[in-house]
Amino acid sequence: MNYLILGANAAGMSAAVRILKFDKTANITVLEKSDVVSFGACGIPYYVGGEFKDIEQMTARSLAEFTKIGIDVRCFHTVTGLDAASKTVTAVNAEQQTQTFTYDKLLIAVGASPVQPPIKGLKTQNVFTMHSKRDAQLIVDQLEQVQNVVVIGNGFIGIEASEALREQGKNVTLIGLSARVLETIFDAEISTILEDSLQRHGVNLRNSEMVTELVSEQGRVHQVVSNLGQYPADMVIVAAGFKPNTDFLASSGLTLSEQGAIVIDAQCQTNLPDVYAAGDCATVPHRISGTAYIPLATTANKLGRIVGEVMAGQPSQFVGTLGSSGIRVFDIEAGRTGITEQEAQQQNIDYGTVWIKDKNHTDYVAAQSEMWVKLIYERSTRRLLGGQVCGAYLGGAVHRVDALAVAVYSGITVEELGFMDFIYAPPFARTWNVLNIAGNVAK
Amino acid sequence: MNYLILGANAAGMSAAVRILKFDKTANITVLEKSDVVSFGACGIPYYVGGEFKDIEQMTARSLAEFTKIGIDVRCFHTVTGLDAASKTVTAVNAEQQTQTFTYDKLLIAVGASPVQPPIKGLKTQNVFTMHSKRDAQLIVDQLEQVQNVVVIGNGFIGIEASEALREQGKNVTLIGLSARVLETIFDAEISTILEDSLQRHGVNLRNSEMVTELVSEQGRVHQVVSNLGQYPADMVIVAAGFKPNTDFLASSGLTLSEQGAIVIDAQCQTNLPDVYAAGDCATVPHRISGTAYIPLATTANKLGRIVGEVMAGQPSQFVGTLGSSGIRVFDIEAGRTGITEQEAQQQNIDYGTVWIKDKNHTDYVAAQSEMWVKLIYERSTRRLLGGQVCGAYLGGAVHRVDALAVAVYSGITVEELGFMDFIYAPPFARTWNVLNIAGNVAK
Repeated sequence: MNYLILGANAAGMSAAVRILKFDKTANITVLEKSDVVSFGACGIPYYVGGEFKDIEQMTARSLAEFTKIGIDVRCFHTVTGLDAASKTVTAVNAEQQTQTFTYDKLLIAVGASPVQPPIKGLKTQNVFTMHSKRDAQLIVDQLEQVQNVVVIGNGFIGIEASEALREQGKNVTLIGLSARVLETIFDAEISTILEDSLQRHGVNLRNSEMVTELVSEQGRVHQVVSNLGQYPADMVIVAAGFKPNTDFLASSGLTLSEQGAIVIDAQCQTNLPDVYAAGDCATVPHRISGTAYIPLATTANKLGRIVGEVMAGQPSQFVGTLGSSGIRVFDIEAGRTGITEQEAQQQNIDYGTVWIKDKNHTDYVAAQSEMWVKLIYERSTRRLLGGQVCGAYLGGAVHRVDALAVAVYSGITVEELGFMDFIYAPPFARTWNVLNIAGNVAK
Repeated sequence: MNYLILGANAAGMSAAVRILKFDKTANITVLEKSDVVSFGACGIPYYVGGEFKDIEQMTARSLAEFTKIGIDVRCFHTVTGLDAASKTVTAVNAEQQTQTFTYDKLLIAVGASPVQPPIKGLKTQNVFTMHSKRDAQLIVDQLEQVQNVVVIGNGFIGIEASEALREQGKNVTLIGLSARVLETIFDAEISTILEDSLQRHGVNLRNSEMVTELVSEQGRVHQVVSNLGQYPADMVIVAAGFKPNTDFLASSGLTLSEQGAIVIDAQCQTNLPDVYAAGDCATVPHRISGTAYIPLATTANKLGRIVGEVMAGQPSQFVGTLGSSGIRVFDIEAGRTGITEQEAQQQNIDYGTVWIKDKNHTDYVAAQSEMWVKLIYERSTRRLLGGQVCGAYLGGAVHRVDALAVAVYSGITVEELGFMDFIYAPPFARTWNVLNIAGNVAK
């Protein structure tokens, strides 16, 4: 069986390894546009922030490891088209030659790329995204000469970049179009707490503001102009979201979502026979919302494993994402799972909410800190639909969301959450865990 | 309605407050043998260890607060008998007078007392338990003159006491009858890791050893003698377990468990009409094991709230404990939920286990540490029956058990756990959370 995989990162390479496990005679070819495989871009802000020095730590497995187990990875191959009728894919190699590849089963795992917002003068040598290994290296190489940084985009990566660059002692201005940080991830209560942390740590946070132009001299930006002001800049980080790398599929007959992501089912099957997709270029089955586009490394890894099994003939299928995600913002951490209140509104669900503030653990143990919990539950069934927890870093807020994830997954009611037997010991919780309390105050 | 409550700690006072909420005309009398109410004894080791200075922080609510809301707490009343036929309770007050109290509804929440092991010379002025406020004060008052401490009992309190006294710079010998620490709480794999932590931090740990005699001079112990050795001691802490304070019920007709605990159902009802029990003197409905005796503050609080509602006519009932508990042992933390492997054996369950070691979070974020996970699942259904997690303190091991608690509660399979959408972000987990990995390696 000839397996063709497009893209050599989390989803693609997880699938390749899994195919080999179940189909010992598999013939696996992987087409990768760069020469970097299995790269975990989520590490870039931590690398830039100086938390580690060896850039190779972001590579899960090397090209040599894949080659050794018989996976044929073709680097510098940019895919240009899919003809599902003839089961062929065309790609352009480093020498600009167009080649045609045939497949019995095809996996599209080409990922997503940073959105390039419509800003005048964007293509300049000191303007970066935080997407590739090359980005990471270039940013770090220039850091010493940089004092003023403007970060464009107030989502996950914009915030992580701002934190990293403050840790490196830079003046950081964070400019975002949205009215609040992480607007599509958290409800407003949590955004407010995270914004407070950014500001307490010296980030000049500018929400509801649009960058219109980067002013350069001798090929380097020195000023960022927005609709509301001007900011000196020795470096600009663009973190304005992602779009699926699916332009080459426009005439393929594949069904795409409104975001341009390939629509898949719980077995990662597309609408075309023997064509599968997974990772940041595809939608993901969502336990509550049906289908969603949530590009996250953890989902790419899980779906990569599943699609590999499915392609190799195993009866595997995905149980559904919960959209769980989390972030550290200096001395604060926050996480979410299930749906937020605004998502419940968008989905016309008759919901109730809880919003409480309590403490992470017993009064008399050191490092007690505040903890905030928001719950969203279905009014008729009382079932938990989502939860968000925020508190001091290392106080256990994010891990508490993991407990809520299992609760949302299982359809636990708020009353059941109120009496769930969580661990109590003075260094870890109060006798009534903050999650119990949240469940018990649901009206 | 006349409500009589025996015992003024977690279960009793939680119930009293809850009764008042639903029965505005309630007449509530509480009989308490000491003059201390709502005392959280779990704080004592942390008080002894110097983590806080104000002993009142261990009191959840003061006597005055209860009096103010109309709850009649009679201190220094030791209950001596129950006659369910005539609905009366007898008690002896501070003046040694016997009084009779009648009730419409009775709650027995008299707690448990430290076991006094059969050791020669045990009643001496520098021998303590860690049970009462008075114990806590006396230990701290003597600390300065103490250099060598022997702790008897290798369970939760013995370990917490040993940690606290090491933190205070004392030489600590911990002697336990059991072959390993926390033998009934964790499986051997976890005990081994906790024992390593105790020894690395200078506790002289002596398992499988029996103290036979305390040798005193002028009313103070100076030597502890065991079946295997002799140890100098300026202070002895006895932490040899608890027994329910139910001796006074011997002829009451109440059904007691083999541990002497009052047997209750999910509404805290005993076998006698209008007689309820909750807390450390009673059994607790267990989600997997049916009924268990697991004296824990968190359960006492939960069942106190429920029994108050039930006594006041509300349709409340307990969803069942999971026996969740956890501990910090210097730089290590560990927790458990559901049943252990040894409990699965005792209950003749056809089970499988998983035991893995992984890391708490991404390689490239500071403070990465090892994390161990044990899972117990039912072989036929693949459902998770229990989990134990151990790792570096503040690395998230104990909070991960909370996620497993919801999983055990909900009857999640190991396969579902393997793909559960836990939060991934570099400071909190790997892309495959250690719990995912544990679920995925279950054979």
